[in-house]
Amino acid sequence: MSTTDDSRLHGRRRFLASATTLAAAASVAPALSYARNRNAPDASASDADVVPFFGEHQAGIATPQQSHVYFAAFDVATEKRDELIALLKTWTNAAARLTQGQTAAPLSNDPGKEPLDSGESQGLPASRLTVTFGFGATLFVKDGKERFGLGDHRPAALVDLPRFNGDQLVAERTGGDLCIQVCANDPQVVFHAVRQFARLSYGAAKLRWAQTGFLSAGKSAHETPRNLMGFKDGTMNPSASDSKAMSDFVWAGSETAWMQGGSYLVARPIRIALEHWDRMKLAFQEQVMGRHKDTGAPLGKTGEFDALDLEANDADGNPVLPENSHVRLGAPAVNDGAQILRRSYSYDNGLSFTAERWPPWHQGMEFDAGLMFLCFQHDPRQGFIKIFDKMSKFDMMNQFVTHIGGGVFACPPGVREGGYVGQSLFGVA
Amino acid sequence: MSTTDDSRLHGRRRFLASATTLAAAASVAPALSYARNRNAPDASASDADVVPFFGEHQAGIATPQQSHVYFAAFDVATEKRDELIALLKTWTNAAARLTQGQTAAPLSNDPGKEPLDSGESQGLPASRLTVTFGFGATLFVKDGKERFGLGDHRPAALVDLPRFNGDQLVAERTGGDLCIQVCANDPQVVFHAVRQFARLSYGAAKLRWAQTGFLSAGKSAHETPRNLMGFKDGTMNPSASDSKAMSDFVWAGSETAWMQGGSYLVARPIRIALEHWDRMKLAFQEQVMGRHKDTGAPLGKTGEFDALDLEANDADGNPVLPENSHVRLGAPAVNDGAQILRRSYSYDNGLSFTAERWPPWHQGMEFDAGLMFLCFQHDPRQGFIKIFDKMSKFDMMNQFVTHIGGGVFACPPGVREGGYVGQSLFGVA
Repeated sequence: MSTTDDSRLHGRRRFLASATTLAAAASVAPALSYARNRNAPDASASDADVVPFFGEHQAGIATPQQSHVYFAAFDVATEKRDELIALLKTWTNAAARLTQGQTAAPLSNDPGKEPLDSGESQGLPASRLTVTFGFGATLFVKDGKERFGLGDHRPAALVDLPRFNGDQLVAERTGGDLCIQVCANDPQVVFHAVRQFARLSYGAAKLRWAQTGFLSAGKSAHETPRNLMGFKDGTMNPSASDSKAMSDFVWAGSETAWMQGGSYLVARPIRIALEHWDRMKLAFQEQVMGRHKDTGAPLGKTGEFDALDLEANDADGNPVLPENSHVRLGAPAVNDGAQILRRSYSYDNGLSFTAERWPPWHQGMEFDAGLMFLCFQHDPRQGFIKIFDKMSKFDMMNQFVTHIGGGVFACPPGVREGGYVGQSLFGVA
Repeated sequence: MSTTDDSRLHGRRRFLASATTLAAAASVAPALSYARNRNAPDASASDADVVPFFGEHQAGIATPQQSHVYFAAFDVATEKRDELIALLKTWTNAAARLTQGQTAAPLSNDPGKEPLDSGESQGLPASRLTVTFGFGATLFVKDGKERFGLGDHRPAALVDLPRFNGDQLVAERTGGDLCIQVCANDPQVVFHAVRQFARLSYGAAKLRWAQTGFLSAGKSAHETPRNLMGFKDGTMNPSASDSKAMSDFVWAGSETAWMQGGSYLVARPIRIALEHWDRMKLAFQEQVMGRHKDTGAPLGKTGEFDALDLEANDADGNPVLPENSHVRLGAPAVNDGAQILRRSYSYDNGLSFTAERWPPWHQGMEFDAGLMFLCFQHDPRQGFIKIFDKMSKFDMMNQFVTHIGGGVFACPPGVREGGYVGQSLFGVA
């Protein structure tokens, strides 16, 4: 136990040190689609660490990012309110156990019964597993019909996203009445957890879509991970240690009483045309991103954490940071100060057949890979929608990336021991 | 450096200790489809460790198993022998660099050029990356036509697999002129490597199919990992430290001169109907496997490493190990002593629409998950084919698993520094 406690302390200390470093770079702009919390991956944390499930907020939001995600969206298969509540109670109990490194339910060795856990995580450490639940708009009203008596409880902030320029959302990867974001430092642990939730939902809910992802950071705490475009993705996420920033930008407020202390999740799988990107010259890639590839420094600067200079012009009078560069369009300064908490992962779904829309117009199998963009916010109308509306129209990066699905989910506040996720919404114990 | 050396030594010492333990359990039978080398994952190895690329044998065969695989099959797009040789040379150079934790090619920061590496592994350690190349039968003769002047050089052991009972191989996941097995302790490192090989092959070869996989072992060296059926998969792989066993069962001999020191790879993605399996009672799961789920002990025994007793009957005169149990059918004793070196990984391709063939005949999204079965052998005719022929007909497990693709590949011997993979076949420097 002392090893675990030590590594947590160490992690916290480093986190504070890191936050100080970031404060000095406070005007660095966030890069929307490929961004993640620089504070996040905690290389020194032991895989045996347990992230507490119970608390004021759900874990998996302000929690430093783990190395793997399994995001799953479900549709509720019953129209009975008590069956939905029973499912949420069952899921809560399973999540509380799984995050401790236990099986989803107490195991029985009764040979005449189905095992209550599929077993592939036995012997594996907790691996910093977190489970974050969310409710989609269709849980409240679907096809114009109220469900579960929740019609009056849909938060105003749980908006339907507008159709953004370039959206190519496929139904099979979009929406969902419920979602679960499972994160841990082990792919077998996240797979196992989602498998148990699916199994415990038989009859009450069914899987709608899912997406896995990974995130690899160098072992040095000061190294910013790279996305599949090969660029460093250090960004100005609100710092989890800054309670005012978290309250302003991440946690839901009192506008909807049952959501206070919760957060709104926007999830968007974004395919990247890697083969196209890889054929671009280095200088062009850097113009698109607005940063140098090797150092991560903003164009015209030398250090990764140097502030963006949105006003600087080169000798010819052209902006050093191109008007339509990704990093400029995502800067809070051009978005009325909007900020969101990014918690994205690279994804890799193997190969799929693609007919290229760019020279040399290759047809064949290409990587179905990109970014599982996940962001949490106080209100999507002042968060993702605000930032992405302009980006979807003007970002030079759009010729390489395609949003192919996603959803908006209201993630309720954390669970008190003995309670269940969503209890503040259903109002019954 | 001393840390790295220490951890390697430690790994080797533990390996020998473990081999001794195994010798005491020499009559434990291998379980074919879900098996892996118990010696393999080396939890004490540092991710910074470099596995040498050059050597007598290709790395990634006798190498202790890493936590991630990216298997990719390619078709050669040129019919010119010198272009094929040029590709193999390019790939060899890239593999030698990547396995050292370097970029695929020396980087130029010339902004007017395409970057010669996509960059997402910069800053990440070598992560024990190995790259293993293989040649499919269609590299030698395709549609009855000789290719690249290699018609007379196809090894007799590079057979076409027979159609096994239950095979449901889809063309999009089967075959390939060339294959690359990339393994490392980081999913971003394996993705990056395959991406570079694909990119370096533009014009000369194209991706045909691919499959990723993962393997999670407890941190204790004595813990046997579990597959997605939830059972421990400790098996009697030939020990890498037993040169006679490796020579008898794994390395190719002198029958085909250019393959001496190589090995034959059989790759089979095997989908597991997890939802079906999860509904089976514990006692039935154990009868199917022939082992206890919690301890991994053979039925009728108490210790995981207790020897199988193929003769024992219960009070009613029925065999304690059912006739059609997986572990019995894979036992060398019932397969004329056949052994193969398993190096399999669990796979997870997200969800796909499935109409269940079992009660309650659910239709909807289910896990497209299972096992990426990879095994190396002296000769598939005395290895995989020998063992799987009976298994494909009688194994009780077959109602839960489906072979959906795969191939056989001749993996040539290792590369000497300055040489290239396959040089013994092409006979030119």
